[in-house]
Amino acid sequence: MAEISVLGAGSWGIALGLLLHKNGHRVTMWSALESEVNMLLTEREHKIGLPGIKIPQEIAITSDLDEAVSGKDVIVMAVASKFVRATAHRLQGKISKGQIIVNVAKGIEDKTLMRLSEVIGEELPEADVAILSGPSHAEEVGNGMPTAIVVGAKTQETAEYLQNIFANDVFRVYTSSDVLGMELGAAFKNVIALAAGIADGLGYGDNTKAALITRGIKEIARLGEAMGAKPATIYGLSGIGDLIVTCASMHSRNRRAGILIGQGRTMEEAVKEVNMVVEGIVSARAATDLAHKYNVEMPITEKVSEVLFNNADAKNAVYDLMLRDKISEHEEMPWE
Amino acid sequence: MAEISVLGAGSWGIALGLLLHKNGHRVTMWSALESEVNMLLTEREHKIGLPGIKIPQEIAITSDLDEAVSGKDVIVMAVASKFVRATAHRLQGKISKGQIIVNVAKGIEDKTLMRLSEVIGEELPEADVAILSGPSHAEEVGNGMPTAIVVGAKTQETAEYLQNIFANDVFRVYTSSDVLGMELGAAFKNVIALAAGIADGLGYGDNTKAALITRGIKEIARLGEAMGAKPATIYGLSGIGDLIVTCASMHSRNRRAGILIGQGRTMEEAVKEVNMVVEGIVSARAATDLAHKYNVEMPITEKVSEVLFNNADAKNAVYDLMLRDKISEHEEMPWE
Repeated sequence: MAEISVLGAGSWGIALGLLLHKNGHRVTMWSALESEVNMLLTEREHKIGLPGIKIPQEIAITSDLDEAVSGKDVIVMAVASKFVRATAHRLQGKISKGQIIVNVAKGIEDKTLMRLSEVIGEELPEADVAILSGPSHAEEVGNGMPTAIVVGAKTQETAEYLQNIFANDVFRVYTSSDVLGMELGAAFKNVIALAAGIADGLGYGDNTKAALITRGIKEIARLGEAMGAKPATIYGLSGIGDLIVTCASMHSRNRRAGILIGQGRTMEEAVKEVNMVVEGIVSARAATDLAHKYNVEMPITEKVSEVLFNNADAKNAVYDLMLRDKISEHEEMPWE
Repeated sequence: MAEISVLGAGSWGIALGLLLHKNGHRVTMWSALESEVNMLLTEREHKIGLPGIKIPQEIAITSDLDEAVSGKDVIVMAVASKFVRATAHRLQGKISKGQIIVNVAKGIEDKTLMRLSEVIGEELPEADVAILSGPSHAEEVGNGMPTAIVVGAKTQETAEYLQNIFANDVFRVYTSSDVLGMELGAAFKNVIALAAGIADGLGYGDNTKAALITRGIKEIARLGEAMGAKPATIYGLSGIGDLIVTCASMHSRNRRAGILIGQGRTMEEAVKEVNMVVEGIVSARAATDLAHKYNVEMPITEKVSEVLFNNADAKNAVYDLMLRDKISEHEEMPWE
């Protein structure tokens, strides 16, 4: 049994807290929002984030960060991406050397282009930062649907320790040493989810979507490889696996924003209508910058950026993609 | 402009015939079924296979095989997998040396475990056999939805010749030298489509399906690599791309059969109810045999086979998969 703190009481934080509790660990949940803490203490349920799923009394709920993290074996960071740096910053002086922190948010920090594990590492150099990522709708994990996911860590020891803490008979956990590849895949897949949404919005079918997913993941793998990641990771659960789940879901903000843009809205109108952070937009800018920096061809990402930031016509963007130079599927594969 | 014959007037044959006609080629369609030929000549539409899509008068339609293939630049073989050998056999003596034949059917021949391009090559050693494969519902191609696909051939010359013949502004064609990988991916993805259907039938969600697709493609890539194929091909349009489209579609016989099995039917009952060839079943047997022969671990394929052929309980099979040894996502990726 481990003492575990989950920071952030949104749907994913609660789903993970419940899972860890079922696995026999002592769980404390923390939220920065007093109102959220009060709702959870009174209702023992997150009415918006994870309705219908009760949170047992044994799970402690607090808004006191010191109480939440003191003496814990593992801290799970489940706040929204844009709050990761601020939350890590608030932990300064509160954690001991080698403290295991598992970040479960996805994305690249705007402006700095840092991965979130780097952001946490910068704020908390003494921490042992790991990540958990893969195709995992919170509602489905909360309802016990079989799910497979990956823990990425700097050492095999930490990865396998966390694997044992999270795994059970409906939650299969793999380990990985390629934290870089996992984070790049998880962030940039949202650009492709936007593209798939745009195709849906234009009224295109499953053929178009499958092509965008397959070719999109290939260009992310290409960028990842140039940056030092392993392509196999991008083709794994945290990359294409997560992209498949995103593109199948109407819950995905990225996909929904894409659909609206495909139907003719501008980026600003779509963001306003979705009324939540659309991470694929930040990621599209980051991926385009990195593609130029590493001199990697990313035609789908480029087109998404043109549609988002230069108001390019979405339909023309698709035709431009279809009519690019006739090439081989895998340029690296020689003819005899 | 090329002279092209399309053998087989099912939905995919007709969609390709229409595409080639639009691209400016002279197209002849052939069917072995007199009744089908008569329907097409009278109605200029395949009422069952591709309803609502008219076939222009300029496309010749015949049941005379000699007339269909004589003097053609390209023969497109679009008959169902189980008729590929018989159709190729009927072409003996009718084609010249170097005749380009493009097979578009998918699957592995039962008993011989031969790939379909090998079957055609055995029957017609003088032919230059190529293949066309990727995520492409016939109805969507017929309706002009943007689609991306791959031509695999023995030489770059043939591949690029066919690329130019098939490509247009809604049909993007890549070339590949890895015919082996394309055929293995296209055949064995149906086993994973069955598994995904079983998960749907059991009432599991998108997490489970994304995990099965991602891990399923990885084990196919492992087998493919052992057999001499390139993993990149399995992660390409003809592999995971086609699997994504299959798992999204209610038209897929493999998925539908899987759903019925997940709901508690036996394999025999499911096949009877679907009332069509379920190629994933033949492929599951073939993949299991090949996995043993090449000593490759294929846990999902093995479990599908146990459910299909030994009446193993589907729910238990899923839990067995979840509870396998705790491993790293990519065994080939070392820890430092």
